[in-house]
Amino acid sequence: MTGKLYCFGESGNAYKAALTFDLVGIPWEPVFVDFFKGEARSPAFRKINVMGEVPVFVADDGEVMTQSGVMQLWAVEQTGKLGGKTPAEAREVMRWLLWDNHKMSSQIGTLRFVQNFLAPEHRSADVIKWIAGRVRVAYKTLEQHLEGRDWLVGDGPTIADLACSSYLYYPEPFGFDRDEWPAVAHWLDNIAALPGWRHPYDMMQRAFPTAKEE
Amino acid sequence: MTGKLYCFGESGNAYKAALTFDLVGIPWEPVFVDFFKGEARSPAFRKINVMGEVPVFVADDGEVMTQSGVMQLWAVEQTGKLGGKTPAEAREVMRWLLWDNHKMSSQIGTLRFVQNFLAPEHRSADVIKWIAGRVRVAYKTLEQHLEGRDWLVGDGPTIADLACSSYLYYPEPFGFDRDEWPAVAHWLDNIAALPGWRHPYDMMQRAFPTAKEE
Repeated sequence: MTGKLYCFGESGNAYKAALTFDLVGIPWEPVFVDFFKGEARSPAFRKINVMGEVPVFVADDGEVMTQSGVMQLWAVEQTGKLGGKTPAEAREVMRWLLWDNHKMSSQIGTLRFVQNFLAPEHRSADVIKWIAGRVRVAYKTLEQHLEGRDWLVGDGPTIADLACSSYLYYPEPFGFDRDEWPAVAHWLDNIAALPGWRHPYDMMQRAFPTAKEE
Repeated sequence: MTGKLYCFGESGNAYKAALTFDLVGIPWEPVFVDFFKGEARSPAFRKINVMGEVPVFVADDGEVMTQSGVMQLWAVEQTGKLGGKTPAEAREVMRWLLWDNHKMSSQIGTLRFVQNFLAPEHRSADVIKWIAGRVRVAYKTLEQHLEGRDWLVGDGPTIADLACSSYLYYPEPFGFDRDEWPAVAHWLDNIAALPGWRHPYDMMQRAFPTAKEE
């Protein structure tokens, strides 16, 4: 099984799928989406995904998947890897995937966007402060859970680790300082030490205009 | 199988679990959480759920679940109901659960909170405008997908419908007008016509101080 992943480097959500595929051994081919030119919200792209979002994965049997968590769960189904060792662990994995969508990536992704990619004249100090507050609540939850642990669920890596960590490897500033969250920092090192791990900017083409000119 | 659901009336996420349990026929007992007095963020509650969130479900075999989507998926596993009819439909259900967490409930729940439950002196016009813009994108996605359909996935109700619709039944103002989104309105009527459907305020005790005094 293989497929094409519609993606771009800045997308932490695309990164979750791409890294999962690499670590379980599913080959994939990138299809670059020129996000900052609005390609993901174009009518042509909305025909592929009504949600107007990256990533989209088109498996070689023709199945179209959207939402990185769906792709991650599919990769677990295909290979039996990274899904937790018991049904209770699988439920814990699902819990962290949902939390990531609700409280972590949805907030941190937005904060990073507003602080780094949105045109300065559209940035609001109140909005940044609001989202930053919510992001700190998420960091605190992660830190508290990871104290004394190497992984989010059980005693080995799962797709939950790849989902919740994805945005934290990006270099753009969004109020995350490893020194402030030592348990999170230890966990990020564990993930980055997995054989085959790569940084998002080493896996996918970047779309932000100044990055493309580099 | 049965269990105790830690909940309060204003929580659209608790409502997703409660309504799912009712519609698949799993009996549950409510445990009231006094949310607006901070009970969900108390150290005692964080011992039950490090995420500091409602709902929490404690099944009668002792398993503790958090995240409404985990409870909904567990209810599907237990009963074979509302999970979609094929593996591809089940994946579509998951797609909408994740989208709901990422783009719908996480935004609309926050907007409703800021506009209705946050002390007026802490409300920011910029923040409200920002979240309201994101909520409108979510309404548009739902409307586009539901045009010509009765349900989000396949030709019958699933837990995806219960998840994505939950906040839209609340009476507090948060910029949702059924006249503006006819396909969404039709779908909300379909869900509310399901045998056993109830409004959240008829299922769970309200926690907001003025509501408690009514």
